[in-house]
Amino acid sequence: MTKRRRIRSAEKTLGTSPGTLLYVGDDIEHATRVRRIDYNADEYRIDDDARLGNCRVPDQSTPLINWVDVDGIHEPQVVAAIGKQYHLHPLLLEDVVNTDQKPKIEFYDQTSDNGTLPGSGPVVFATLKMLHHNRQHQEIDIEHVSLVLGSNYLVSFQEERTQDIFEPVIDRIKASAGKTRRSGPDYLFYALMDIIVDHYAVITERIGERMDELEEEIVGERASQQTLASLYQLKRELAHIRRVVFPTRDIVGALMREESELIKPTTLPYLRDLNDHISQNIETLDSYRDMVAGLMDVYYSIVSNRMNSVMKTLTIVSAIFIPLTFIVGVYGMNFDYMPELKSPHGYYYTWGTMVFIAVAEVIYFKRRGWM
Amino acid sequence: MTKRRRIRSAEKTLGTSPGTLLYVGDDIEHATRVRRIDYNADEYRIDDDARLGNCRVPDQSTPLINWVDVDGIHEPQVVAAIGKQYHLHPLLLEDVVNTDQKPKIEFYDQTSDNGTLPGSGPVVFATLKMLHHNRQHQEIDIEHVSLVLGSNYLVSFQEERTQDIFEPVIDRIKASAGKTRRSGPDYLFYALMDIIVDHYAVITERIGERMDELEEEIVGERASQQTLASLYQLKRELAHIRRVVFPTRDIVGALMREESELIKPTTLPYLRDLNDHISQNIETLDSYRDMVAGLMDVYYSIVSNRMNSVMKTLTIVSAIFIPLTFIVGVYGMNFDYMPELKSPHGYYYTWGTMVFIAVAEVIYFKRRGWM
Amino acid sequence: MTKRRRIRSAEKTLGTSPGTLLYVGDDIEHATRVRRIDYNADEYRIDDDARLGNCRVPDQSTPLINWVDVDGIHEPQVVAAIGKQYHLHPLLLEDVVNTDQKPKIEFYDQTSDNGTLPGSGPVVFATLKMLHHNRQHQEIDIEHVSLVLGSNYLVSFQEERTQDIFEPVIDRIKASAGKTRRSGPDYLFYALMDIIVDHYAVITERIGERMDELEEEIVGERASQQTLASLYQLKRELAHIRRVVFPTRDIVGALMREESELIKPTTLPYLRDLNDHISQNIETLDSYRDMVAGLMDVYYSIVSNRMNSVMKTLTIVSAIFIPLTFIVGVYGMNFDYMPELKSPHGYYYTWGTMVFIAVAEVIYFKRRGWM
Amino acid sequence: MTKRRRIRSAEKTLGTSPGTLLYVGDDIEHATRVRRIDYNADEYRIDDDARLGNCRVPDQSTPLINWVDVDGIHEPQVVAAIGKQYHLHPLLLEDVVNTDQKPKIEFYDQTSDNGTLPGSGPVVFATLKMLHHNRQHQEIDIEHVSLVLGSNYLVSFQEERTQDIFEPVIDRIKASAGKTRRSGPDYLFYALMDIIVDHYAVITERIGERMDELEEEIVGERASQQTLASLYQLKRELAHIRRVVFPTRDIVGALMREESELIKPTTLPYLRDLNDHISQNIETLDSYRDMVAGLMDVYYSIVSNRMNSVMKTLTIVSAIFIPLTFIVGVYGMNFDYMPELKSPHGYYYTWGTMVFIAVAEVIYFKRRGWM
Amino acid sequence: MTKRRRIRSAEKTLGTSPGTLLYVGDDIEHATRVRRIDYNADEYRIDDDARLGNCRVPDQSTPLINWVDVDGIHEPQVVAAIGKQYHLHPLLLEDVVNTDQKPKIEFYDQTSDNGTLPGSGPVVFATLKMLHHNRQHQEIDIEHVSLVLGSNYLVSFQEERTQDIFEPVIDRIKASAGKTRRSGPDYLFYALMDIIVDHYAVITERIGERMDELEEEIVGERASQQTLASLYQLKRELAHIRRVVFPTRDIVGALMREESELIKPTTLPYLRDLNDHISQNIETLDSYRDMVAGLMDVYYSIVSNRMNSVMKTLTIVSAIFIPLTFIVGVYGMNFDYMPELKSPHGYYYTWGTMVFIAVAEVIYFKRRGWM
Repeated sequence: MTKRRRIRSAEKTLGTSPGTLLYVGDDIEHATRVRRIDYNADEYRIDDDARLGNCRVPDQSTPLINWVDVDGIHEPQVVAAIGKQYHLHPLLLEDVVNTDQKPKIEFYDQTSDNGTLPGSGPVVFATLKMLHHNRQHQEIDIEHVSLVLGSNYLVSFQEERTQDIFEPVIDRIKASAGKTRRSGPDYLFYALMDIIVDHYAVITERIGERMDELEEEIVGERASQQTLASLYQLKRELAHIRRVVFPTRDIVGALMREESELIKPTTLPYLRDLNDHISQNIETLDSYRDMVAGLMDVYYSIVSNRMNSVMKTLTIVSAIFIPLTFIVGVYGMNFDYMPELKSPHGYYYTWGTMVFIAVAEVIYFKRRGWM
Repeated sequence: MTKRRRIRSAEKTLGTSPGTLLYVGDDIEHATRVRRIDYNADEYRIDDDARLGNCRVPDQSTPLINWVDVDGIHEPQVVAAIGKQYHLHPLLLEDVVNTDQKPKIEFYDQTSDNGTLPGSGPVVFATLKMLHHNRQHQEIDIEHVSLVLGSNYLVSFQEERTQDIFEPVIDRIKASAGKTRRSGPDYLFYALMDIIVDHYAVITERIGERMDELEEEIVGERASQQTLASLYQLKRELAHIRRVVFPTRDIVGALMREESELIKPTTLPYLRDLNDHISQNIETLDSYRDMVAGLMDVYYSIVSNRMNSVMKTLTIVSAIFIPLTFIVGVYGMNFDYMPELKSPHGYYYTWGTMVFIAVAEVIYFKRRGWM
Repeated sequence: MTKRRRIRSAEKTLGTSPGTLLYVGDDIEHATRVRRIDYNADEYRIDDDARLGNCRVPDQSTPLINWVDVDGIHEPQVVAAIGKQYHLHPLLLEDVVNTDQKPKIEFYDQTSDNGTLPGSGPVVFATLKMLHHNRQHQEIDIEHVSLVLGSNYLVSFQEERTQDIFEPVIDRIKASAGKTRRSGPDYLFYALMDIIVDHYAVITERIGERMDELEEEIVGERASQQTLASLYQLKRELAHIRRVVFPTRDIVGALMREESELIKPTTLPYLRDLNDHISQNIETLDSYRDMVAGLMDVYYSIVSNRMNSVMKTLTIVSAIFIPLTFIVGVYGMNFDYMPELKSPHGYYYTWGTMVFIAVAEVIYFKRRGWM
Repeated sequence: MTKRRRIRSAEKTLGTSPGTLLYVGDDIEHATRVRRIDYNADEYRIDDDARLGNCRVPDQSTPLINWVDVDGIHEPQVVAAIGKQYHLHPLLLEDVVNTDQKPKIEFYDQTSDNGTLPGSGPVVFATLKMLHHNRQHQEIDIEHVSLVLGSNYLVSFQEERTQDIFEPVIDRIKASAGKTRRSGPDYLFYALMDIIVDHYAVITERIGERMDELEEEIVGERASQQTLASLYQLKRELAHIRRVVFPTRDIVGALMREESELIKPTTLPYLRDLNDHISQNIETLDSYRDMVAGLMDVYYSIVSNRMNSVMKTLTIVSAIFIPLTFIVGVYGMNFDYMPELKSPHGYYYTWGTMVFIAVAEVIYFKRRGWM
Repeated sequence: MTKRRRIRSAEKTLGTSPGTLLYVGDDIEHATRVRRIDYNADEYRIDDDARLGNCRVPDQSTPLINWVDVDGIHEPQVVAAIGKQYHLHPLLLEDVVNTDQKPKIEFYDQTSDNGTLPGSGPVVFATLKMLHHNRQHQEIDIEHVSLVLGSNYLVSFQEERTQDIFEPVIDRIKASAGKTRRSGPDYLFYALMDIIVDHYAVITERIGERMDELEEEIVGERASQQTLASLYQLKRELAHIRRVVFPTRDIVGALMREESELIKPTTLPYLRDLNDHISQNIETLDSYRDMVAGLMDVYYSIVSNRMNSVMKTLTIVSAIFIPLTFIVGVYGMNFDYMPELKSPHGYYYTWGTMVFIAVAEVIYFKRRGWM
């Protein structure tokens, strides 16, 4: 996850008309697949490979809730077709395909748009970022997800299907006429966001584990320059994840606050719960950030301590032996007249002096706490 | 208290339906015990081991206030049974058992929930964290506590009963028809929170004592690398406690602001007082945090000062003896023709020169303030 | 003023009923003295040692303003007696004796409290901290002061009377029928706060003087490790004073904002003026804090500069003499065949080489700006 | 882009009357050119070199939208003439020519201005900064752009025309009766701002590329003092760009909030989109700023690490050889009586001792992790 | 401008009655001079040395606007006399003479003040700080200026007249019946503030020039300890100026917001313009502050870099010559039996070994990038 948020297409899109659909992400190999799920408390129908022509705003009289899950946003014509049949605003579609778009929510009241989109009342539009850990590259993959909530339908767009993130919800729809089946599309909207937010917690947990390892290394004084590099890496990942998770809280907050008629009061407690989970996640991320800073401080303190030990050793060795070397140098001089040299005990006296000096210095250094 | 806030179950809960009761904490050995206390100004009844069947929303005509204290949240079926009999929302119960839930308050107006919970009017729900010092492991234990306040009842959930934190309130109920007995369940709600907040002050005080010890060590220049480690440890504990205490202030603030009909005006001064205590605690924690930072600065400054002394010693010894060693080296050379060597006073002149150089250097260093 | 804010009694008060009067401060020797002053524009009566029985809420028909000044809060029974006669709320009295209570203001509307305190209408309650410089211990003493303002009375509580801080106001009452005599108890309330705030300015000024001394020491490069310790001490004092002064501004702000009927419009300009003084004081404290930080930076920069000088000296001496010592070592070797030793000018050539090397190094070091 | 925001004319303008037109920028060579474009969904007319006399507020009955693009703001008389014919406030014109003016928006309701400007209803006035990369000087050029929006006209002022930034909009007007032609002048206003904001993204992207290069240099440990200088340069550019981009967001925010009758509801989604783009840009700039700080830390950490290596090498070499040199010095002494010198194996024993000492030290250093 | 904000009189004023006029500034030599200007669009009268008696609130029927400019605030009796004749509140006058008063604005509605000041309706009162550069002492002089705006008059107080700052406005009044003459006293109020704000820009510009010089010194690596001192000085001046300029923006903001009847709508655009200028100035000051911090970092980085060079030189010289000195020491030993000494090529072999070691070390150091 070292690649930074691209505005790569900035120069390319310069001067294009607003609302131009231009996919700027990576994934362009497999074809877009569209899945259509219709359900209510009594029944459900799932079409795993729906024809585009079958996907449109359902009649108000239809008893079923209509969910269209578009998997792949790299084919502008497919997104445009879906957009046309669901009467979606061109700027909304631009956000669906723009993988650089940061998480946000918008409340479109399409009927007020000067006649060009004679659609089916207001829609709530949210773009989110799905995070999952890519075991292969040891990175965090980011997937651009968009949700459009109408009165009796929901359209979801995913960047990739390698890991089908909405599967658990479909499983719950299949499983029994539970809360999901008995509630409206606003609960479905919540359920899909809930899955995304749950994944944030998993990612956060992984980071926590790596932090534990680094902490052990550092506190166990086994840290190397590599450990520091890992800490910086972790710090950047935390900042990155925070930039994804933080606006998600704003999205949920806006949903709770805005009093859109599309969100029923019974769904509010669930949104509040979701908000709680995100807040907790952000708090954890923040405490991790503090920990990273703390660990860096500890690391630097250990490095500086080690350096101090090195310097002390140098000083002690030098301070003891340099004067002694001077003394032996004195008696290595070749002057014709040096009385000490003749003395039979001169050599032993010299040794005595040197031992005395060395011991005195050792005592001095020990007193000052340097040894 | 080095273990960080776990979101350990993140991966396990991935995709489960919202409202699923899943206990994620540690304590799973002893059985859940339920205590039921009924009281008013005139009488009180305490059943220390109440049957679950006896715990339900009391009749509005009952003159007694009903308090059910559930000790143990690790058995989902017990919590679910209590929840059912008190008509509590599934998400509320999820927060009761989720020990990772951070402190928060919620105002449930259950009658508005689409008919599924035909309960007994609004409830106030608060989750808090009890902190107590574990003498055995020298850690701070965190206990997850939840309170549910209804019109004439209160349900409390505690994570453990090793240390029965609500005992003083029960003692006051037993003791006399005092303020607690004469007031409603909102005062009981306040009294329980008050005990928890009082414990925060005790913990804060302990930290203050440890800080005093560390300060003495550092200012007395007896600090070691270990002292620094303790400071970092203290800093982390302070951050941790702050994360528990800070949202508690928000909870009390919300109680005062929200104008719930469950909180009577006569209880407001007590809540204001509680708010005061928490604010004071937070301020103390913040001043401790500043002190830790200040102590670290002092520590680093002392270390760096000591390092400077070491370097100065090295420099002085080297600067004095290296030139002298050079001089004696000169007269240790074996050139056939070196006139000084023949001089009868050469040896003494050399010593004179060396003493002069040494004295000059000492004077120079003293002038520059290095000695 | 190195002792930190105590929550010393935390463990002792654990589980006591709210509203319990418990004095936690130091001063417990001399007895409580109560002074009673009654005044209006026409006359004044001062009773320096009033009997408790004489102190009660004055009749609404009384033309005089009643001021009771209680000196000593260490005798709970005295405070309780005053509280009873002035119908003061138990929590209010708790704050009066709790010397750990931080500055705050409360607007009690006692008539709304369920019948237990059939007092005399609303009161405004403020607790403040008096700061004065203790010349003996070179510390800043903190005194806990509380003011209760009623419709036609004011009760003030002081922790000690060693320095009677309200004397100037009594002198003004005695002196002439000035603004103080002609105004209501709200102006008296303002006047007492004004004196406290004026003392803050005196303390701040003293700190400014000490800062000037430290600045001179540091800029004059006469700073020692002791200077740094003084700076840290000053920094802590500044933080401490700020924690006292800051909430005082909030108190005045609340008085201006709350539109209590007890504060007359003509007093508002005086409160605004008071607010101004506190703001100015806070600004000065903040600029001092910045200065302390700046001085520390200068100090560290000087220390590091000195260290650099030391290291440069070491390097220059070593770099010059170590190579020279090597050269003389070469010609000190005892090989049988060393042609240079036989050369009649070898000794002088060697000296020439050494002088050349030394001069070259000196030039090199000068060019690099190390000498 | 090293030149800082000038207030160069501060002293010159001292005491001049407010509303005096005084150009303070650089560009004064070529003449001002005025371009006039009239268009609606059916037709368009472009006059590339319009006479000043032809530029005035169009009649309300005219079916065409009137856009006047003034290229050059260094001739006060031209700006004044345009200002007079479009009834613009003197202070507005002052902002048009004042290239030091930071980005801002104003809502002039000219009819309320005491009769001196009997204009044509309210106008919206915005000043912005165009950024483009000057390939020649490797700098970022800043161009002062102003837009005046009236009910059926728009006047734009540009500082230079070397790079005609509004060309793409004119091309779109020429190309077909698209969204631009079919919408009112408020959409044109949006379209011009959109182009400016798109250029911000291009500049940001370029900075991202330079950051990547620096990151590679630093992480690849190929960083020099020059790299650090480049980082500082980059940091300053980021701060500079942020100061341009940040108020632009406020401008768009104000447009969305103010509910001016000049902005039609159908344009709001486009403004929201524009707001999004700017927010994204600011976020990117902020993440770059964090990265610069992070890279600096890494750089310093690498430098300090290298320094540590240097010191360790010095210490190891010194600590090993200084004691050995002492030993050989001992046996270089010329005492008459030194028994070891006579021993036939003395020389080998000495070597043995020295090898032992050296090996012991190497083992010691390896154990402490210094080698 | 090194003298810090004095609260010098704090102890002296302790206990004085609020509203006591006490001048605490420096300037006390020349006498107070009062200038009176009456003007409207048709005529103007200027009395350069007006008698106090002539200065009073003009009659509502007078067609002329009355401006009294008081030059000198060190004579309390003069200020008191003016204050009495214009019915100014005692606290307002206290702020006029208190040169320590920070910039602020107050809206006095004098009619509501309990009968003691039967004045002429509401007044707007502002205190400001005039900054001008004192060329003689190379300091920034601060002058305390106060403005009182009434319905048809304006009173201005200046601390000194050495540099008559309001001269340009008087010149404009004399020059022609321009905007100033045609507008009311609120425009005059604006015009005087505008001059003060223009002077801030001049001061800011001067600081910018000094910063440029310091930047050149530092980037050109010609910086000394003195440069650092200048940077600290600059940093303090910036903080000081900011403390003067910042509240000025609040003053203008309050004028725009408060909807006082004294400020006519036509003056609002001018206030908005003034607000813009101050904001720009603050932004410039802030960017300067960032630059100072950046320059300090660069300075420290250069110093640390130089230190690293010093250490590297020491290490290289030591690491090369210490081992060599050991080797020559070996062959300087006087053992009877040392076979190498007898070898005819021993001396050359030794040199060969030493050259090899030196070259190997140089290569090693070059590879590690130390040379």
